[in-house]
Amino acid sequence: MTTVLRNLPKVGEDISAWKIIDVERLELEKRKGPTLPEPYEVVVAPQWNGLCGSDMHIYLTAMLGEEKMKAPFVLGHEASGIVVEVGTGVITLKAGDKIALEPGEGCGRCEDCKKGAYNHCENMKFAAADGRNGTLQGLYKLPVDLCYKLPDNISLEEGALIEPLAVAVNAITNIANLPHSANIVVFGAGPVGLLIMAVAKSLGARRIISVDVQQERLEFAKSYVATDIHLASESKKGETKEEYSERHAEIIRRNLGITDRGLEAIDVVIDCSAAEVCMQTGLWILKRKGTYVQVGCGPLYVKLPMRIIADRELTVKGCFRYGPGVYTMAIDLVSRGLIDLKSLITHKYKWEDAVKAFEATKAGKGEDVGPPLRG
Amino acid sequence: MTTVLRNLPKVGEDISAWKIIDVERLELEKRKGPTLPEPYEVVVAPQWNGLCGSDMHIYLTAMLGEEKMKAPFVLGHEASGIVVEVGTGVITLKAGDKIALEPGEGCGRCEDCKKGAYNHCENMKFAAADGRNGTLQGLYKLPVDLCYKLPDNISLEEGALIEPLAVAVNAITNIANLPHSANIVVFGAGPVGLLIMAVAKSLGARRIISVDVQQERLEFAKSYVATDIHLASESKKGETKEEYSERHAEIIRRNLGITDRGLEAIDVVIDCSAAEVCMQTGLWILKRKGTYVQVGCGPLYVKLPMRIIADRELTVKGCFRYGPGVYTMAIDLVSRGLIDLKSLITHKYKWEDAVKAFEATKAGKGEDVGPPLRG
Amino acid sequence: MTTVLRNLPKVGEDISAWKIIDVERLELEKRKGPTLPEPYEVVVAPQWNGLCGSDMHIYLTAMLGEEKMKAPFVLGHEASGIVVEVGTGVITLKAGDKIALEPGEGCGRCEDCKKGAYNHCENMKFAAADGRNGTLQGLYKLPVDLCYKLPDNISLEEGALIEPLAVAVNAITNIANLPHSANIVVFGAGPVGLLIMAVAKSLGARRIISVDVQQERLEFAKSYVATDIHLASESKKGETKEEYSERHAEIIRRNLGITDRGLEAIDVVIDCSAAEVCMQTGLWILKRKGTYVQVGCGPLYVKLPMRIIADRELTVKGCFRYGPGVYTMAIDLVSRGLIDLKSLITHKYKWEDAVKAFEATKAGKGEDVGPPLRG
Amino acid sequence: MTTVLRNLPKVGEDISAWKIIDVERLELEKRKGPTLPEPYEVVVAPQWNGLCGSDMHIYLTAMLGEEKMKAPFVLGHEASGIVVEVGTGVITLKAGDKIALEPGEGCGRCEDCKKGAYNHCENMKFAAADGRNGTLQGLYKLPVDLCYKLPDNISLEEGALIEPLAVAVNAITNIANLPHSANIVVFGAGPVGLLIMAVAKSLGARRIISVDVQQERLEFAKSYVATDIHLASESKKGETKEEYSERHAEIIRRNLGITDRGLEAIDVVIDCSAAEVCMQTGLWILKRKGTYVQVGCGPLYVKLPMRIIADRELTVKGCFRYGPGVYTMAIDLVSRGLIDLKSLITHKYKWEDAVKAFEATKAGKGEDVGPPLRG
Repeated sequence: MTTVLRNLPKVGEDISAWKIIDVERLELEKRKGPTLPEPYEVVVAPQWNGLCGSDMHIYLTAMLGEEKMKAPFVLGHEASGIVVEVGTGVITLKAGDKIALEPGEGCGRCEDCKKGAYNHCENMKFAAADGRNGTLQGLYKLPVDLCYKLPDNISLEEGALIEPLAVAVNAITNIANLPHSANIVVFGAGPVGLLIMAVAKSLGARRIISVDVQQERLEFAKSYVATDIHLASESKKGETKEEYSERHAEIIRRNLGITDRGLEAIDVVIDCSAAEVCMQTGLWILKRKGTYVQVGCGPLYVKLPMRIIADRELTVKGCFRYGPGVYTMAIDLVSRGLIDLKSLITHKYKWEDAVKAFEATKAGKGEDVGPPLRG
Repeated sequence: MTTVLRNLPKVGEDISAWKIIDVERLELEKRKGPTLPEPYEVVVAPQWNGLCGSDMHIYLTAMLGEEKMKAPFVLGHEASGIVVEVGTGVITLKAGDKIALEPGEGCGRCEDCKKGAYNHCENMKFAAADGRNGTLQGLYKLPVDLCYKLPDNISLEEGALIEPLAVAVNAITNIANLPHSANIVVFGAGPVGLLIMAVAKSLGARRIISVDVQQERLEFAKSYVATDIHLASESKKGETKEEYSERHAEIIRRNLGITDRGLEAIDVVIDCSAAEVCMQTGLWILKRKGTYVQVGCGPLYVKLPMRIIADRELTVKGCFRYGPGVYTMAIDLVSRGLIDLKSLITHKYKWEDAVKAFEATKAGKGEDVGPPLRG
Repeated sequence: MTTVLRNLPKVGEDISAWKIIDVERLELEKRKGPTLPEPYEVVVAPQWNGLCGSDMHIYLTAMLGEEKMKAPFVLGHEASGIVVEVGTGVITLKAGDKIALEPGEGCGRCEDCKKGAYNHCENMKFAAADGRNGTLQGLYKLPVDLCYKLPDNISLEEGALIEPLAVAVNAITNIANLPHSANIVVFGAGPVGLLIMAVAKSLGARRIISVDVQQERLEFAKSYVATDIHLASESKKGETKEEYSERHAEIIRRNLGITDRGLEAIDVVIDCSAAEVCMQTGLWILKRKGTYVQVGCGPLYVKLPMRIIADRELTVKGCFRYGPGVYTMAIDLVSRGLIDLKSLITHKYKWEDAVKAFEATKAGKGEDVGPPLRG
Repeated sequence: MTTVLRNLPKVGEDISAWKIIDVERLELEKRKGPTLPEPYEVVVAPQWNGLCGSDMHIYLTAMLGEEKMKAPFVLGHEASGIVVEVGTGVITLKAGDKIALEPGEGCGRCEDCKKGAYNHCENMKFAAADGRNGTLQGLYKLPVDLCYKLPDNISLEEGALIEPLAVAVNAITNIANLPHSANIVVFGAGPVGLLIMAVAKSLGARRIISVDVQQERLEFAKSYVATDIHLASESKKGETKEEYSERHAEIIRRNLGITDRGLEAIDVVIDCSAAEVCMQTGLWILKRKGTYVQVGCGPLYVKLPMRIIADRELTVKGCFRYGPGVYTMAIDLVSRGLIDLKSLITHKYKWEDAVKAFEATKAGKGEDVGPPLRG
């Protein structure tokens, strides 16, 4: 396959960048590009950027975690790009290579980094997450070990979805430790839920049950990878969330032939809905000694049926970003044709239309892994 | 060592038994004793019975789980005893042997039993737990594999505490999977909390931090096995449980030099208090990727800081009774002098004074693993 | 689907049975059938029996383990059958049901049984393995938990292959603990090797590399499930096994693009060849921290490259029969169409031709999981 | 506690260094010291250096792995020292601090480093292991994360033993994953064997059985940490190693009351002898599903009882250096008084007497973790 390196910015040139200034205010800025890469660094021209919930959170609130942002910064952390220049120690990449960019750089020296848990690095530099500039700019410099070459059969558009796919791979492999031939229920059929189901399928899951409140999302899930779908029923008048969740769990069990033990018991529940009632229902539905994984971030506190967790010896686990080996597996699963990313790209925007992309996502289109932007 | 077999009831004789009739009503009944043991069964004369929270729950409410008891039955499930008769296939025990009795008999045929999780057996027969007769009677018949011979250096009084100790051993080994040289915080310094700390110490825990609301319990914990104690501070006026728990976690950290990473980070939190605010505090105090275990049973629903569980990738696990190998390890730890049970025996009652034992426990004396009764 | 219950033997009737008398001497005997089943027992009429290496070992040597057999006994342990009568406590099966029979009955009381490792039961009763009568007879009585109902889409002929498939499922899941999306090399493309590869594929393995000395076996492996095949090269004149294995490992790496690290590194090696040189080659080919599993039984002692095991921190594990949940998963994988057993049934023999079946297998036809016999 | 910083070399000054020139030829060389530290680097003045088997191997053979050394280089990799200068980014250390030095620097970028297995780093720089200069010199520069501050209660002499202790901690925790209250047999009562037993004891092992061929070593082991000792018996005339190992395993079992199952079964065997017959004996002695760990390096190939590994489902694991968190735990165990290093320091030599130290070790004195050298 022949690829032609387009006319990309060069190191030393000025570049353009989309900065957030304040609530719902983006500006396209001309700024100085990065300097020459150190021996193990790479300068990349980002080509497509995905928008996810955390981008939208910043866009809509100008908040970074619990605090108001202090100064404008460049957005973007789900990016693919083309290598422009490599450091002298880099032998695995060259100018012109298509890559997916991993946005978080661990320090490599702290306890967590050395233990292989760099997602908990105490000196983490993560694109656009803490006021640091992200990937929504003409050039971006990063260490070579965060650059993953895309095989010829993965496009740059798809490459921008490797980051959310990495979240899904991590949840299924490192956190849920998906058992062989497992039955799994996923609450929420948005992009992350879909990717989690796709990963589960690619790794041999037995039943993949998608639960959501929107019939059309469920229908897409079914056509995509789910073996079963369940439209969350209405709550009864005056019913508490807790009453609903217990009752609803029974409905799901009955409708889908789920049992407490044996082949039709649920091994793993993953919540991507961030809704308290889904978390509750998920815990009621699990088999004894089953595993529940929280992927979506929701309210700080939720009411959980602790007595059920105790009596059934459930395991509840959190999940934060991704760790070593995850990007590599994510790209390989796509490249081997086991995961279809193309169907998930619903909207595309030109570089100069970034504001439109954010506004469209705000309006409910293309949410989560939504509209990749041409960088 | 010489032991003299006392005049024990014989198989075929009538025996006396303490039955629960209704709320706070016990009766001493004369009843027919068990028939001859099958090949792998053993008939035991229970000698001492411990009273725990679940006994008291039945005594005070006449409820079995969610339902009112249907008929009188014999109480008791924490028992030691003397073997009276063994089946023809039994070669490891003989009449006169002192044993600890494991109260739950799995069916051995269901999926959970075969997987080594007989505490989840779907046909479980558990002494006094579901209306079945328990060990508070003159003779009791059970399969040989539930009979654990007590070494000469463990008395029958101590033998009655092997059951709650088994709960502690299971929580620390099978559920928490106590890491090597770990720091552990235990909420609640009642009998189960103390036993959990004792097991942690016997297995090489580094720091064992006891948290409670009563200074005298903490002082006992310190003299017993805790390396550090912390008296839970008062909540401020108008403060919610959630505000209190986050603030209180900071106080504990500061007072005890607990850090987020490194040697002084908390690997394991175990809650034996069943108090929502302790569960919350425990989760705030754990290190990233740390493990929280729920031992005590509390309200069905509790509010938990799910965002903290997610972001810090915590693991929350339930704990239900005990499984294979646990009784054996419990007895061995006591026999090797690593765990002191004698100090935990605070009250003793004669057989005919069972009602007094229940009433004293109700009044707050000798709670949980409380007053063993001479059988 | 309609099935007609054929005229099967009844409990109380005399039955016929194939007994081994001495080396290569079988006799068809008329004998008394089993008595009525106890509450949790089932009487089955075995329909098809597979012959495997251990059957042939007994047939050819009249040895049971290290000792000469003491008395004639009925052969057979890989059987499917039709239920003839069930005990009063059996609710999951009824007369006429097609089942696969698990041949080993653990005592349920010993330490290993209770820990879920009943394959190591110290009181194990295993069909035809220690002089006990096996399944090559008209009726056979066994506990209900060893009877696995075959779904309508699995025939009785296939049912006789569930036992060797269980060996494969156990090796891949419980012993190798096949990592997600793993690369695996299997030495030996006989029936067990093929089944192991089939299980690996059904559970999402990435590359499944079959190594054998016969081109035709490799070609079948490729058409069956292998992603890659490798014909073991000739050893050079004067070369030791050790020299050969190290050199051969390099050839395999080069030919198949296997690397030391990254996507093309080998996560798991399973040896089903029982040949010392394969074991050695397998260890040389594994990635650091990779897992090697020994399935076939070979010579008591073999020379292994221990310095490689040490320096690369390899894990070498043994594998003995199967444990809880394995039969259920095996049947499910076949029923879901993920594993094809039909292609592995190469020869069939009538009941009265059992001697021919043994002789054909001896002559090299249909070895290992070979010719099922109509019971 | 007051410490006075002695007159140490300064950055920029010339330093002296012990270089290996050829087989058994060391030379004290005057050389240029290190340049100023980069932001996260530290310059240390090594004070004491331990000599171990691998130092002696280089000294006696001038071989690095399989190849002859190409040029002289500075020896030493088990060192303690005093910080002389720290980089601008270093906040945890200052000049004058006493530290233990970890000798291996992973690249932090490769797959293994990022997975937390930096001992398998493909770009590893390890002091004196591959021709690179080691710690037997006046000043040594290394990254801050390889510098571990020694608490006041650990002397610099002891600090030189942290490296071999780290090997032991790694073997027991990360590789053997020592079960709670385990029985362990250690073959070889040399320094590494002793340290492994000391770590096992500090982490709660139940029985620690030391096996050796020298009675005096065993007596020291017993006085140090072993609960039981066993003097390896003589082999019979004409007996093969294999016959001996099987017979010897029976003798050990009988003498020490070791059983196949239950409390007195052996959970873990660790070989530090590198003798084939010990490896064999160790495998015969393990319980079903037990774990064997190879720590010492011996011949490339050894004969192992593979049929026993298979039938008993043993796990055999290799062990290579140490990984994240190990140094920290090692220092903490010593500081808490759980491991006594002082008793293991048998010989001390002055800086200018390094040749004497090597010659004494060659002559069989102070082998393995032997004589620390004043740097």
